[in-house]
Amino acid sequence: MSFKEKGLLVVLSGPSGVGKGTVCKALRKRGTDLQYSISATTRKPREGEIDGVHYFFKTRDQFQQMIDQDKLLEWAEYVGNCYGTPVDYVRDTINAGKDVILEIEVQGALQIKQRFPEACFIFLAPPNLRELKNRIMGRGTETAALIESRMTVAKSEMELMQNYNYVVENDQVDKACDRIEAIVRAEHCRVDRLIEKYKHLEGDDGQ
Amino acid sequence: MSFKEKGLLVVLSGPSGVGKGTVCKALRKRGTDLQYSISATTRKPREGEIDGVHYFFKTRDQFQQMIDQDKLLEWAEYVGNCYGTPVDYVRDTINAGKDVILEIEVQGALQIKQRFPEACFIFLAPPNLRELKNRIMGRGTETAALIESRMTVAKSEMELMQNYNYVVENDQVDKACDRIEAIVRAEHCRVDRLIEKYKHLEGDDGQ
Repeated sequence: MSFKEKGLLVVLSGPSGVGKGTVCKALRKRGTDLQYSISATTRKPREGEIDGVHYFFKTRDQFQQMIDQDKLLEWAEYVGNCYGTPVDYVRDTINAGKDVILEIEVQGALQIKQRFPEACFIFLAPPNLRELKNRIMGRGTETAALIESRMTVAKSEMELMQNYNYVVENDQVDKACDRIEAIVRAEHCRVDRLIEKYKHLEGDDGQ
Repeated sequence: MSFKEKGLLVVLSGPSGVGKGTVCKALRKRGTDLQYSISATTRKPREGEIDGVHYFFKTRDQFQQMIDQDKLLEWAEYVGNCYGTPVDYVRDTINAGKDVILEIEVQGALQIKQRFPEACFIFLAPPNLRELKNRIMGRGTETAALIESRMTVAKSEMELMQNYNYVVENDQVDKACDRIEAIVRAEHCRVDRLIEKYKHLEGDDGQ
């Protein structure tokens, strides 16, 4: 009879260069109750990276098997390596009543929306496009042509915002984290998530 | 061309005895940016009550005129006196980009939903029905029969929760205020409220 509230799946995404990784790291540092999903990848471990901590390192065959067995919530290939989100960890964690946050590219977020429409989709947005260009240029390693092509991609990624529930401006990392924390807290108060709990509450009094 | 974000209309309601007034007072003390609407009433001023501060005091004729001229967002009669929410203050304040909070009975909240479906409806709920009964009894002035009849009303009011966007448990006033503040902050990040802003943002770069 008792009502067990499920955890939330929070999907943090946004155009490349907007600072998803930085915001996620800052959230982690705050020690909030959010759980962080670990990606599976076919990329080779870099110095200091530990299997099961930073990534689940997989061979191509193992990764393909995960795809075939529907064990990935989303996956994509970047620069010759595959990256994906193992579905078991996400399901187990939210069934245990804990919130999970995924930091992923916009294409992956759209894949998740197909399978987990009840997730909370947060789009991290730049304060303006000039700022986004500065950040893409700031990596310092790209040619002008590559920067322009990245900007074209980023602009088309901005148009995917309408598929999300929330947009958080990344004007300052700390403010962006405050907003994300408020969103998670507010989502836990949504009537459609809690109405079952209050149906049981009415039984409290023997009615 | 510039995007001006409107303020939110936040409607805080819930069964009688749940502590709406206490929570609203505590929110006010925090000095948040919320604006508080002042009700119009036909009730006579009590000692220390100031017209335009605590209430707008109206004669029956004046109140009736406000109803006829559609100047009230909602109104109701309690114990022979009329109470209502002047619509002008609410519209002017949200058009100026400020958030307004209304603390009202569930019937009034439903009236507002007809006219302002985009408002943010928060249902303040008791941690359990025994607690609600204690609070109703705690006023100390009611007979057993009156308490029972209030409980019957309160239970039917609980069923109106499904018309709201959020439910906030009033287990502790401070926690309830935290949740309400998070909800207001999160609502300001909703994509459907901000998508216009980001359409303009895309113009920043001359695209």
